Amino acid sequence: MKLAMVKTGASARLVRVDADGRRFWPLETLAPEMPHDMAGLIAALSSGAALPEPEGEGEVLDEAMLLAPLPVPPRNIFCVGKNYHAHAREFAGSGYDSSSTSAADAIPKAPIIFTKPFTSVSGPWDDIPLVPGLDAEVDYEAELAVVIGRGGRCITKADAMKHVFGYTVVNDVTARDLQGKHKQWLLGKGIDGFCPMGPWIVTTDELDAQAMRVTCTVNGEKRQDAVTSDLIFDIPTLIETISLSTALLPGDVIATGTPEGVGIGFKPPRFLRDGDVVECAIEGIGRIRNTLRRVDAAALRGAA
Amino acid sequence: MKLAMVKTGASARLVRVDADGRRFWPLETLAPEMPHDMAGLIAALSSGAALPEPEGEGEVLDEAMLLAPLPVPPRNIFCVGKNYHAHAREFAGSGYDSSSTSAADAIPKAPIIFTKPFTSVSGPWDDIPLVPGLDAEVDYEAELAVVIGRGGRCITKADAMKHVFGYTVVNDVTARDLQGKHKQWLLGKGIDGFCPMGPWIVTTDELDAQAMRVTCTVNGEKRQDAVTSDLIFDIPTLIETISLSTALLPGDVIATGTPEGVGIGFKPPRFLRDGDVVECAIEGIGRIRNTLRRVDAAALRGAA
Repeated sequence: MKLAMVKTGASARLVRVDADGRRFWPLETLAPEMPHDMAGLIAALSSGAALPEPEGEGEVLDEAMLLAPLPVPPRNIFCVGKNYHAHAREFAGSGYDSSSTSAADAIPKAPIIFTKPFTSVSGPWDDIPLVPGLDAEVDYEAELAVVIGRGGRCITKADAMKHVFGYTVVNDVTARDLQGKHKQWLLGKGIDGFCPMGPWIVTTDELDAQAMRVTCTVNGEKRQDAVTSDLIFDIPTLIETISLSTALLPGDVIATGTPEGVGIGFKPPRFLRDGDVVECAIEGIGRIRNTLRRVDAAALRGAA
Repeated sequence: MKLAMVKTGASARLVRVDADGRRFWPLETLAPEMPHDMAGLIAALSSGAALPEPEGEGEVLDEAMLLAPLPVPPRNIFCVGKNYHAHAREFAGSGYDSSSTSAADAIPKAPIIFTKPFTSVSGPWDDIPLVPGLDAEVDYEAELAVVIGRGGRCITKADAMKHVFGYTVVNDVTARDLQGKHKQWLLGKGIDGFCPMGPWIVTTDELDAQAMRVTCTVNGEKRQDAVTSDLIFDIPTLIETISLSTALLPGDVIATGTPEGVGIGFKPPRFLRDGDVVECAIEGIGRIRNTLRRVDAAALRGAA
């Protein structure tokens, strides 16, 4: 099952999307008694509620209508750093990695977990803002994101997959200069608009998370291409690790880390510039495509 | 003005507290038209609404009734690492500091910002849980926390204090082993129940944040004693820095960092043990007092 948020007219609606991603049924008509926000729906479905099968032919889905499927997760999104071997080495060798100081500790011995606030989440077609002071070293990171269904604390690896509701695609956009300068990664990673997400959430029954192909192109040029079987810390390990510290909640998102091929993996680094188009895709889920756009700081100040 | 959450019977109520912290007036009677959750009230008051002066003698406040004043901030709490000179040196020399590798970079050149999720927030008298796997190297960190009023992006230092609603006390409780092992600090800092907060929020008009005395005792023994004038990065600098990356929201919390005297500053380190009582206090605000209590992981698993 695919669940999405779509913009129709002035309103954002939670919808069920067909297998081909071509038609949709609004929850408000399909299941009027169910919650109409994504985190609420995930909680309900993970507590035993079920969505009825759609009837009729639904409405035509235009890709451009899609919004971030989970715009307000219950907490900051959990993100994993350096979780593919080849990427861990390219990052450790880039000069930007405040988490390692030598080739000997390039590969993490335990998951590196940081967060991005919900305010960084943007839609699958939204622009990525280039704001003065944050625009010098912007980089892409295509990632498989896990959406938690049933919550829980101290979840074991053996039980972990029972707590996964589904998957989506995120681009963990990063200001590399801030990531390095501030040591902890929040300010370089948690920038407003630096977490494009989508195109929808695909439930676990439709996918094999152990072998999904993750790709990223910039202006059509292939930059990242890997399979999730190469994760250093797999999804059950991430869930066990995080849920030891904090009870996972329905709707929590865990971005599982990015593979080799980010901009700072090149020498010299290839940062994103105004007008660049970044497309992140995962086989079996779909793609998100975002354009870098210069934004004036004065406009942001006024809008806040 | 002091604003608190108090537990009376089965319900949690937002209340205004008198200057002495001895009596309170529930918002539901004092200002029935205003939001009755703290983040909502802060947003309303920061948009120009005003609370009426209390009438009558109110109700008697017993310290034990107090809950965390802001149990659900809009996002993970922003926290600052190594923000007092003497503490930055003791931490860098402790062997636990994944953010520095030599005495040369013990003092940060830019604010180190990480987060604690709202699920870590607990009340001013709540126990701090010692959970197997998280209990070996638990440490205290008394801190002044800033509560944001009016939101905004790209806030300048000159304007920053206009965005502060008030202050409270937090204990940024930390599992030092996890903080070191995972490089990024979320898992060692964001443990459920590891952010006691209170006893209330005191609005800016009553305090001079430039010169507040922050103290911490463990079982009555003085461990930390400093003034906020010793902050490496002051409140306006923190607000300018964070709001460059993300628009601050009403109710956002910024824990400004802890002074010298934490457990890992001792040789050998003095970690918290079952039954220890930690009291964090700030002159002009008040105190929070929390007891370390062993908790069974099976109980947590069942409760989640």
